Amino acid sequence: MRATFLHGSGDIRLTDAPDAALRQPTDAVVRVVASCVCGSDLWGYRGISKIDGPKRIGHEFVGIVEEVGAEVRTVRAGDFVIAPFAVSDGDCVHCRNGVHTSCRRGGYFGSQSRLGEDIDGAQAQYVVSPFADGTLVATPGVPDDALVPSLLTLSDVMGTGHHAAVAAQVSPGDIVVVVGDGAVGLCAVLAASRLGAGRIIAMSRHADRQRVATEFGATDIVAERGAEGAAKVAELLGGIGADAVLECVGTKESMQQALDSVRPGGRVGYVGVPAGGPELPVGQMFSANIAVAGGVAPVRRYLDELLADVLDGKIDPGRVFDAEYPLERVADAYTAMDARKVIKPLLRP
Amino acid sequence: MRATFLHGSGDIRLTDAPDAALRQPTDAVVRVVASCVCGSDLWGYRGISKIDGPKRIGHEFVGIVEEVGAEVRTVRAGDFVIAPFAVSDGDCVHCRNGVHTSCRRGGYFGSQSRLGEDIDGAQAQYVVSPFADGTLVATPGVPDDALVPSLLTLSDVMGTGHHAAVAAQVSPGDIVVVVGDGAVGLCAVLAASRLGAGRIIAMSRHADRQRVATEFGATDIVAERGAEGAAKVAELLGGIGADAVLECVGTKESMQQALDSVRPGGRVGYVGVPAGGPELPVGQMFSANIAVAGGVAPVRRYLDELLADVLDGKIDPGRVFDAEYPLERVADAYTAMDARKVIKPLLRP
Repeated sequence: MRATFLHGSGDIRLTDAPDAALRQPTDAVVRVVASCVCGSDLWGYRGISKIDGPKRIGHEFVGIVEEVGAEVRTVRAGDFVIAPFAVSDGDCVHCRNGVHTSCRRGGYFGSQSRLGEDIDGAQAQYVVSPFADGTLVATPGVPDDALVPSLLTLSDVMGTGHHAAVAAQVSPGDIVVVVGDGAVGLCAVLAASRLGAGRIIAMSRHADRQRVATEFGATDIVAERGAEGAAKVAELLGGIGADAVLECVGTKESMQQALDSVRPGGRVGYVGVPAGGPELPVGQMFSANIAVAGGVAPVRRYLDELLADVLDGKIDPGRVFDAEYPLERVADAYTAMDARKVIKPLLRP
Repeated sequence: MRATFLHGSGDIRLTDAPDAALRQPTDAVVRVVASCVCGSDLWGYRGISKIDGPKRIGHEFVGIVEEVGAEVRTVRAGDFVIAPFAVSDGDCVHCRNGVHTSCRRGGYFGSQSRLGEDIDGAQAQYVVSPFADGTLVATPGVPDDALVPSLLTLSDVMGTGHHAAVAAQVSPGDIVVVVGDGAVGLCAVLAASRLGAGRIIAMSRHADRQRVATEFGATDIVAERGAEGAAKVAELLGGIGADAVLECVGTKESMQQALDSVRPGGRVGYVGVPAGGPELPVGQMFSANIAVAGGVAPVRRYLDELLADVLDGKIDPGRVFDAEYPLERVADAYTAMDARKVIKPLLRP
């Protein structure tokens, strides 16, 4: 079978890989229907994260179950499943606490588990999912192909944007600012809207992304960034600041912009993977009672709830995919995303 | 009248000061019944904070209203009142949001208001309270003298400990760790207990403070500090970490101890004034979904609720006062507190 490997900075290759096969009785083999490229995949691609030789990559996918191990109970061959980017056993204390990303036996697709085992990358024809019962979520029946993009967002970006909104305790009527106009930022706009925010200011400089943000419920667009962006938000909000700010980038600058945009007593929900170890200015947080919550999103926890809304047609987060590539052209998808020519590319094996 | 002035490092003097008099129609003149020394008062006293010449000091007091300005409606001469350490007008957007410490016209007793005016220090015979309606809370009738210590804690330490618990979202059954065994830490134990925590681990090395912590509801005492303290907590909790940690010190070490003691998805509520600008390690927070919330406590917001429990005898936070000095001996109170010979000294004019 064919699978994507990151060989080094800028070096993505689709090559032959050993066929997927059950290793544990809790595994499932899934034939990938769609996967995609994530902003965080670019970190290794851009050489920001260190790479040790060729490694399988990709952590978002939906697909059809081909085969399950003897102990798997909740999914079966033929099921259409959504795979959260994090593997979780579903029954350790952290999973029971809803923090599936901290599962004691879990890990991330395309990385190593906390048990020290490699987990397949998702930009491939097939993926073996460990702990299929705790990880995979089957849809009722095989969904229409038109729903695939939205279902695929539940693997990561929609759940992650939602996590930012939940962490920031977005409540009906709230004034919300979203920092970041990547797929996660756009999904955060949609999540805030879904939770009843009264006003949503999306920070975006790109016309195509501004358009999606507006479709997702943004009421205002601010094109300025950094201190200028925070000043513009202050101007829009009469110098008060937002009730909640959703930080969906992960740089020191974007976090500072978030902290500078929130009102005293407000909340910053952050899901941008912290790049370069930015630390948080506790003095600013303390004096204004700014809460900071979030982290790597336990999307498994939100999957049932968000899936219901996708199936009911209440939300259409798949709009963040503005390009589709056959898996054979995965390298082109990386090139386009790296150049910010596309918001998020979907891959079809 | 007599008032306490901080002249410089280690130099506290009670001297004559101009008589208290109304300046604004929203002011009240209060005869102080009791005030006290706060851990944060020691910052200037120890030379950690810079001091510009003699300044009135103290921000916690209860007393009897002597006189009110023409526009004051909610308190009157003869009322026994509790003064939160922060002055608040009660009707700006931040006060309406419950963040009275960020009041746009407010400030702290013993400091300068955001309008640039000096606000009296509380370690004195009389104090002028600006915005008496928004700031002061009158008790129903003049309370028994035995209640004065507990009522005085509502001025700061009990409200502050409660804020840590609220910020950490302490809920019934939670496992809570309290870092810090000063008056605020002890009140945080009491607050966690009052909110229904199932298990409360107090970090304390001092027998007298351990005793109060236990009386306030601590179920476990850990004497170790720093990494050893966090390791001991991990051992007690089977390697999982606490649901909530209340950080009541404010150093980089104590915050790290708090972060190292919380479970994935848990919350750190912090009220220790950050000393020396410790920054928060966002990488650790992100990977384990640790929320950090808190700050300078808007005790005015909690005053009605906590006052009711004090008057009903449900809580007795006044136990944190283990020494009483006449105001004339205020310098001795500072000396004793600085040497950690007392938890918190009460001052009687």
